[in-house]
Amino acid sequence: VTVQAKRQRRADARRSIAAIVDAARSALASDPKVSMSEMARLAGVGRVTLYTHFPSREALIDAVVEQVMGETAEALDALALDADPADQALGRLVRASWRHLDESRRIRVAAVAELGPQRLLEHHRAPDAWPERLISRGRAERVFRTDLPMDWMVATFYGLMHAAADEVDAGRLDADRAPELLEATLRAALAGR
Amino acid sequence: VTVQAKRQRRADARRSIAAIVDAARSALASDPKVSMSEMARLAGVGRVTLYTHFPSREALIDAVVEQVMGETAEALDALALDADPADQALGRLVRASWRHLDESRRIRVAAVAELGPQRLLEHHRAPDAWPERLISRGRAERVFRTDLPMDWMVATFYGLMHAAADEVDAGRLDADRAPELLEATLRAALAGR
Repeated sequence: VTVQAKRQRRADARRSIAAIVDAARSALASDPKVSMSEMARLAGVGRVTLYTHFPSREALIDAVVEQVMGETAEALDALALDADPADQALGRLVRASWRHLDESRRIRVAAVAELGPQRLLEHHRAPDAWPERLISRGRAERVFRTDLPMDWMVATFYGLMHAAADEVDAGRLDADRAPELLEATLRAALAGR
Repeated sequence: VTVQAKRQRRADARRSIAAIVDAARSALASDPKVSMSEMARLAGVGRVTLYTHFPSREALIDAVVEQVMGETAEALDALALDADPADQALGRLVRASWRHLDESRRIRVAAVAELGPQRLLEHHRAPDAWPERLISRGRAERVFRTDLPMDWMVATFYGLMHAAADEVDAGRLDADRAPELLEATLRAALAGR
């Protein structure tokens, strides 16, 4: 096999992998229970190719979650949250976080079932750094309260984000309205009185 | 069979049922996966007696949840929350709700698995009336904010209660500390600024 042919083969493999992950991501977003065969069909590859790259449904879902979380972390990094006082940056963090949470609400169902909470936690590490960092800075700047433990204020952030996602799932809240309610609630909860 | 004998049999059955539900409740609180045989053993009854009264694990867990929720609703009713302004009554509601949530954290795991979310929601109806009622009154009294929808403020209450339960489960928060943090956070979130 020539160097040229090897290179070609690696490029083909990368394209297949990218097509599979993209197809799996959009399939999971509309049906968290979608099968491997269906994801192969949507990606336009055979089952043999699918299983060569992803030996299990778990491995494929892991790759989808890695892609989603990578994009979320990049989007949050791009917000330059450190440029604003923490209480002003909060609104931008909430809106960006919500957009990603809302997009991946159904992928999350598949991820919880297939990867388990521990692996999911590891995937969250990069985007999760932002709420922690912002809350910590807001405390130092005295725009956020300091009478509550840091860990609990971070838990408050996620607790309310997930409550909003559950409300949208239950049909009691419009997804487009959520960021505004989250911002108003978190601003008061984190600032205290 | 005499009237006397029938009465005796009914009293025996009631005692068996009460013993089974009590034993199942404490067994589930330490191990949500405990088996029917083990619950029969702990209740001091045979498997035949157990299955006569509770034809399935689901039926038994349903009875346990009904007891827990009945007690929670009674305890909340007894608080006379309507006697205080809503923002003062909030602290008492949080402390009482937390005590019951914390006690039944592991029973909840069994209930979610065995009964499903719909049935669980029905069981919650009586105790759930209290946060709604208190938040609604606080809005009317202008001690709670009115710039957010009622439904979302109720979701905020439950979202934070469950976030605290998750933090305790994860070993990041001491269960005894939770009510104080919850009260401080909810007071700010519901009052607004």
